[in-house]
Amino acid sequence: MNPSPESSNAITIWRNARIATLSGTSGWGLIDDGALVTQGDVLQWVGSVADLPAHISKFADLQVAADHDLQGALVTPGLIDCHTHLVYGGHRAQEFEMRLQGASYEEISRAGGGIRSTVAATRAATDAHLLSSATARASSLMTEGVTTLEIKSGYGLSEADEARCLRIAREIGATLPLTVKTTFLGAHALPPEFAGRAEDYIAAVCDWLPRLHAQGLVDAVDAFCENIGFTSKQTQRVFEAARALSLPVKLHAEQLSDQGGAALAAQYGALSCDHLEYLSESGMAAMARAGTVAVMLPGAYYFLRDTHQPPIARLRARNVPMAIASDHNPGTSPGLSLLLMLNMACTLFRMTPEEAVRGVTVNAAKALGLSDRGQLLAAKRADFCVWELDHPNELAYWFGRNACSRAVYGGQERNPGVPR
Amino acid sequence: MNPSPESSNAITIWRNARIATLSGTSGWGLIDDGALVTQGDVLQWVGSVADLPAHISKFADLQVAADHDLQGALVTPGLIDCHTHLVYGGHRAQEFEMRLQGASYEEISRAGGGIRSTVAATRAATDAHLLSSATARASSLMTEGVTTLEIKSGYGLSEADEARCLRIAREIGATLPLTVKTTFLGAHALPPEFAGRAEDYIAAVCDWLPRLHAQGLVDAVDAFCENIGFTSKQTQRVFEAARALSLPVKLHAEQLSDQGGAALAAQYGALSCDHLEYLSESGMAAMARAGTVAVMLPGAYYFLRDTHQPPIARLRARNVPMAIASDHNPGTSPGLSLLLMLNMACTLFRMTPEEAVRGVTVNAAKALGLSDRGQLLAAKRADFCVWELDHPNELAYWFGRNACSRAVYGGQERNPGVPR
Repeated sequence: MNPSPESSNAITIWRNARIATLSGTSGWGLIDDGALVTQGDVLQWVGSVADLPAHISKFADLQVAADHDLQGALVTPGLIDCHTHLVYGGHRAQEFEMRLQGASYEEISRAGGGIRSTVAATRAATDAHLLSSATARASSLMTEGVTTLEIKSGYGLSEADEARCLRIAREIGATLPLTVKTTFLGAHALPPEFAGRAEDYIAAVCDWLPRLHAQGLVDAVDAFCENIGFTSKQTQRVFEAARALSLPVKLHAEQLSDQGGAALAAQYGALSCDHLEYLSESGMAAMARAGTVAVMLPGAYYFLRDTHQPPIARLRARNVPMAIASDHNPGTSPGLSLLLMLNMACTLFRMTPEEAVRGVTVNAAKALGLSDRGQLLAAKRADFCVWELDHPNELAYWFGRNACSRAVYGGQERNPGVPR
Repeated sequence: MNPSPESSNAITIWRNARIATLSGTSGWGLIDDGALVTQGDVLQWVGSVADLPAHISKFADLQVAADHDLQGALVTPGLIDCHTHLVYGGHRAQEFEMRLQGASYEEISRAGGGIRSTVAATRAATDAHLLSSATARASSLMTEGVTTLEIKSGYGLSEADEARCLRIAREIGATLPLTVKTTFLGAHALPPEFAGRAEDYIAAVCDWLPRLHAQGLVDAVDAFCENIGFTSKQTQRVFEAARALSLPVKLHAEQLSDQGGAALAAQYGALSCDHLEYLSESGMAAMARAGTVAVMLPGAYYFLRDTHQPPIARLRARNVPMAIASDHNPGTSPGLSLLLMLNMACTLFRMTPEEAVRGVTVNAAKALGLSDRGQLLAAKRADFCVWELDHPNELAYWFGRNACSRAVYGGQERNPGVPR
């Protein structure tokens, strides 16, 4: 077994780890003296170090490209951030400051604040600026072990600018080692040129979608169903357009009020409904039936000083899979730490550490329609992280602490590297 | 002006920065095209790039050791974390998990949880373990620009173990480039061997103090004045022991109830009173008269799901200087990000970004009795940070994002280096 990285069927061994496999539907799936064997971008085998020789001996001609001793460190699946708005121009720090200095929403609006300012800044930004700023954000998430990332459009709000933002999201996936899934969120807000013409705007969004999809830019379709967003009727038009292209849907649902969005989304077999502070029993039942993931976004809840918690206990009782995401965006969640979201999901929403960790691994994968990752099992994609921690519950306990020491993306260890 | 690092009076220039000097008592003190000149560990000059040649030409024989172009990056004073419990054994992740799984406080206590578990783990830990774990935490804080750090004892609770923890804090200050100030917090909790004998324990604490001080281990003295801590009478005995040694005092005051601790501390000219959720008007008035700093600890407020905010608006109206700290500890604030505390101070306590930044610079310095740092002015210590940001208000706006690209400790740029 000589090291031979060139050999196409060479394996890499990672031994002496405490592995949180997250196998099955509950529990950590801990293997205390564990080993992983990767081949290409796939996990070939996960088990006890004691069983490793028997496994390897089955393959007489196997070449070992590398054999890593993890010295007892914790290994988890690579983290998955399944809801972000990572591509945008500018930021809203001044608006944040004005509000804390006592300015009213009207004053902020008159000073050009709010989502319109981000749309204007995004449209005005060069491709290079959008790419470099979003790449820096993605890299920052990667330092904490994020190996799969969803990026939504939604600050362009014209066909050209939505395409530009989705193209930049694709480019991030092509240049960084992590996987990027794109979501078209044209129905995020009404752009100024459509003021008072929401129906016309929705018609435009539905018109753009087939062309954006034809360019390979869209993995899923999302909308913001809310009093300050779009109605459930308008949302349904967007979902119909997605269905016509066999694209999966997701929804920003019941964040500030119950719009019946979750039930509607479930009707369309939505991958996920996100936020859900005001989710009704009937919406929850529909999600449970459809297998739709409930994505919790505690960063926005925290930043908006919301006090109306999503119904975690009832979601748990109904076995609705729960995910957690950063919701990174410049207006309501300018946070760039998925690990912090685990602590906030526990502290603010009373999720358990295990639910929190499942929420950024196996259930986040499900929220993106990915069945090939999120658990450390043979035949899954070899995305995993090494942590300088004793137990996976520490991922949710500490906050503002990054204990990620190594990350493997599709079998390749790559330095996430903070862009500085 | 040849580079000559050996020359004892050589200067180093840092030019083309946006400098937030925090000069005066309010405002950012921004210099848009700014430069800093350091000589040894001191800031020799801070001003506009335009005035730099005139300044330098005054010193004909001056040698320039290095001339750094910061390319428009933001520079602030080095951050100061003025309240931490960084030295301890073990952690309480399992207790956190048990509570979220529904265990009662009694069950957790029976399972050996609570502060007693940290005292036991600290006493059982080797010096090497205590040093390496606390050094890793200090290094983690340094990556976010912390250049001065307070470390309290309080998990040893015997003379030998308190001395050990303070000695380890001193060792961190000697090995890492940041400045460490030590605080003796023997009156943190009642150790098991003194159960039911709080007065005897306070007598012991007062007995240890002169010997700990004689060993050079104590920069200040603190106590936990609370129903679940020590009474104000007991606190006063500790303060008297400190006064006899001319040691400054601080106090964990009015966190869970109004004990009159702040007024007592002010009477002893306390450097700071910390927590203060239940601070009374009379306590506040006494602090204002004594010049005592109010240290906000939003991490504990957040982690304990407290809803009773400290009286920020009234402290502001009375011109009581406000600081912010991490309060890092394994029980009530297992957070390791001082930047996150800025966002929490704004989001949860409605402090302004400027108050938040002053709270981890000039006012945090004051809370430690340090007048030589916290502002970027000539003759202050050359502790400063370079940030990849446009404006200092962004330090409080983003959360879970570390934009610190360089840090200078007493004139020396050193790589803070995350311990991995």
